[in-house]
Amino acid sequence: MNPVELIRKKRDGKTLTKEEIEFFVSKFTLGRIPNYQFSAFLMAGFLNGFDKNETAWLTEAMLYSGKVIDLSSIKGSKVDKHSTGGVGDKTSLILAPIAAAAGVNVPMISGRGLGHTGGTLDKLESIPGFKTNVTLKQYKSIIKKCGAVLAGQTKEVAPADKLIYALRDVTATVESIPLITGSIMSKKLAEGIDGLVLDVKTGSGAFMKKLTDAQSLAKSLTQTAKSFNKKVISYITDMNQPLGNNIGNWLEVLECLDVMKGKQVNDLVELSLQLSGAMIFLGGKAKSVQEGIDLSKKMIESGKAFDKFIEIAKLQGADITYLKQPEKYPQSKIHEKVYTEKTGFISTINSFEIGMASLELGAGRMTIEDKIDPKAGIILHKKIGDQLKKGDLIAELFTNKKESIEAVKNKIVKALSFSNSKIEAPQLIKSTIT
Amino acid sequence: MNPVELIRKKRDGKTLTKEEIEFFVSKFTLGRIPNYQFSAFLMAGFLNGFDKNETAWLTEAMLYSGKVIDLSSIKGSKVDKHSTGGVGDKTSLILAPIAAAAGVNVPMISGRGLGHTGGTLDKLESIPGFKTNVTLKQYKSIIKKCGAVLAGQTKEVAPADKLIYALRDVTATVESIPLITGSIMSKKLAEGIDGLVLDVKTGSGAFMKKLTDAQSLAKSLTQTAKSFNKKVISYITDMNQPLGNNIGNWLEVLECLDVMKGKQVNDLVELSLQLSGAMIFLGGKAKSVQEGIDLSKKMIESGKAFDKFIEIAKLQGADITYLKQPEKYPQSKIHEKVYTEKTGFISTINSFEIGMASLELGAGRMTIEDKIDPKAGIILHKKIGDQLKKGDLIAELFTNKKESIEAVKNKIVKALSFSNSKIEAPQLIKSTIT
Repeated sequence: MNPVELIRKKRDGKTLTKEEIEFFVSKFTLGRIPNYQFSAFLMAGFLNGFDKNETAWLTEAMLYSGKVIDLSSIKGSKVDKHSTGGVGDKTSLILAPIAAAAGVNVPMISGRGLGHTGGTLDKLESIPGFKTNVTLKQYKSIIKKCGAVLAGQTKEVAPADKLIYALRDVTATVESIPLITGSIMSKKLAEGIDGLVLDVKTGSGAFMKKLTDAQSLAKSLTQTAKSFNKKVISYITDMNQPLGNNIGNWLEVLECLDVMKGKQVNDLVELSLQLSGAMIFLGGKAKSVQEGIDLSKKMIESGKAFDKFIEIAKLQGADITYLKQPEKYPQSKIHEKVYTEKTGFISTINSFEIGMASLELGAGRMTIEDKIDPKAGIILHKKIGDQLKKGDLIAELFTNKKESIEAVKNKIVKALSFSNSKIEAPQLIKSTIT
Repeated sequence: MNPVELIRKKRDGKTLTKEEIEFFVSKFTLGRIPNYQFSAFLMAGFLNGFDKNETAWLTEAMLYSGKVIDLSSIKGSKVDKHSTGGVGDKTSLILAPIAAAAGVNVPMISGRGLGHTGGTLDKLESIPGFKTNVTLKQYKSIIKKCGAVLAGQTKEVAPADKLIYALRDVTATVESIPLITGSIMSKKLAEGIDGLVLDVKTGSGAFMKKLTDAQSLAKSLTQTAKSFNKKVISYITDMNQPLGNNIGNWLEVLECLDVMKGKQVNDLVELSLQLSGAMIFLGGKAKSVQEGIDLSKKMIESGKAFDKFIEIAKLQGADITYLKQPEKYPQSKIHEKVYTEKTGFISTINSFEIGMASLELGAGRMTIEDKIDPKAGIILHKKIGDQLKKGDLIAELFTNKKESIEAVKNKIVKALSFSNSKIEAPQLIKSTIT
């Protein structure tokens, strides 16, 4: 096979064969197809698309560029969740212990913060001692012991994805549904799962701003999961406002601890229960998603979810003192409050800007070398539909970066728009694809 | 400006500004934009197109990546011809001396053989001593002395084109009309011309097999020439059969000498006169193309065209003995004849295959390192519409490569198809665009 011929084929809108896609991805991963040919191929694919089969073959080629973890020695179903990412999206920390407590194995490989969104690994690592960088042996042994593991991607998993993603990032070929599908699914399928719950976010704080794009992605991810014989349920969920109230790594851990201790944190609880309910259903521990939700509630009420989180954290090296007595955690130097100067009902929240504001306080990375301040972030006290009058508290800021306070305050004030008439909160779960 | 933003803009089908195109081309030429970004840009442009203005800006950016030759010190008009290439296309060697003899300066920069087509430089270099690799100073001084120069591209001319072409070749982005336009016109405009005659070929031996593609290219080239205030006439001409009878470097020189000595070689004479007529008209030495054609005929009849060719060749270092007494030229070791086994009228000739056959005999390069055999090639005695009976001579082959004879004979026989009913020869000049 000749790379130029394959580029030409995709350029001319033709469908590639499984062998052709396998050739292109594997040779690129081995460094035998140069970047400039692969980037021309990516752009041709971006513009002409890949069909359902090509997307599955792309995923397969990326998946088998590395190791597929074998969890057959572990009894019971293995189910994970993947979210396309948003602001304040911390459900992983809640649903993994819930599902594990309900008897479903959760082998979860997560990522770091990307752009305006936080990352599960960064959140976990705000817990002193928590190690996300585990070996394959540790990965298996932790699941065996407690039914869940919350780990980072090892270099053995889908190396093609790392190379392809780096190239997409600098060649304007990121926002392609088949390429996003390959990237997500190659990593998830490598985990050794039987089932997968997908949370595809849409709105101002999501990567897919438009509902139709989120629907297309959810459909593509679902089809691809099925083509690998995985059980799958996908939800399209709202990201027009941050999920829950806390944004920033340790602040989000705190909010998750509250939820696991039974605190009713509006949309965060609703979404976490929906997702864990679906995981428990896919894992065969409930007869329906609703039954899974009911079981999830019991896991919280009984304290089993909280205890499971402590157990996982301990096995992954965390100093659980801080989880049991969060007040011992170090404090930010600066704790600032933001008040509204406007009166009315909050009609929209630019969640991208809220995410960026949190990043500027130190909760995320501006450059790859930046060190995250685990304490930094925002507690956003108000959500869409809330009624405010001038002088009401909107948010609290936590940071060590004095110089960023004024700009961040401004950003948050500007991110909110108001209406004089009553506004309904957006529907959290917009649709389900199975 | 950010390369990723510019790639994204073209990817999304938007129109780039002059400054953006200039930035992208100039930074790439300086090595400050990597190949993988430029190739993604090329593919986005290939698929989404460049409009008339963008094509002109692309051409301009490529043109000013190098030196634009200043011929203002030379009196009179400077007019060149460019052909998109075909099999047996040797008109340059005829029309340059005709136009120069008629008083028009012809500053001609040509290329080498590409794929199945021959190149003017390779043909000229089959004349012992003929130097096409001249300095800028020599380029000017030769035109000053005899009114024409037949040179190769110097490294000062449009370096962006060389880099971009090399990348297009390996990323399946060659067949794009705006990119072809930029490549051709940046080199032609650098010659220091006032006017340009374009010969856009279509048919089995051309790069543009389809008439509609040739029309689009002719239109794009014509528009771009005009946007640089150049006088221009474009012809779309037939390449469904080799032009003239001879294919191969020295064989083509021989045929040109015959034409300049007044021999009526069917389509080759007709096309050469049309093109030189247009050049003489654009150069202001005739009131119409027809008057230019009449003047061209006089240049042949009077022997002035032949003498001019000898003069140019002498100034470019050629041993003119071989031009005056071609029988002194070395002979190929093998001289083989090909006869038809079929009877009927020739209905089509696969000229691509004829071009490849000539190449296999040694007339062209299979790889960049190959050395051309100047004597090798084909005399094709029959053309479309000719009536043959079994056993008639179709072609003569000249080569030193004994091992290729059988395959080439086969190729030639297969390249011809026959009809029982009378067939018209294809129309040579299909349309004119001004």
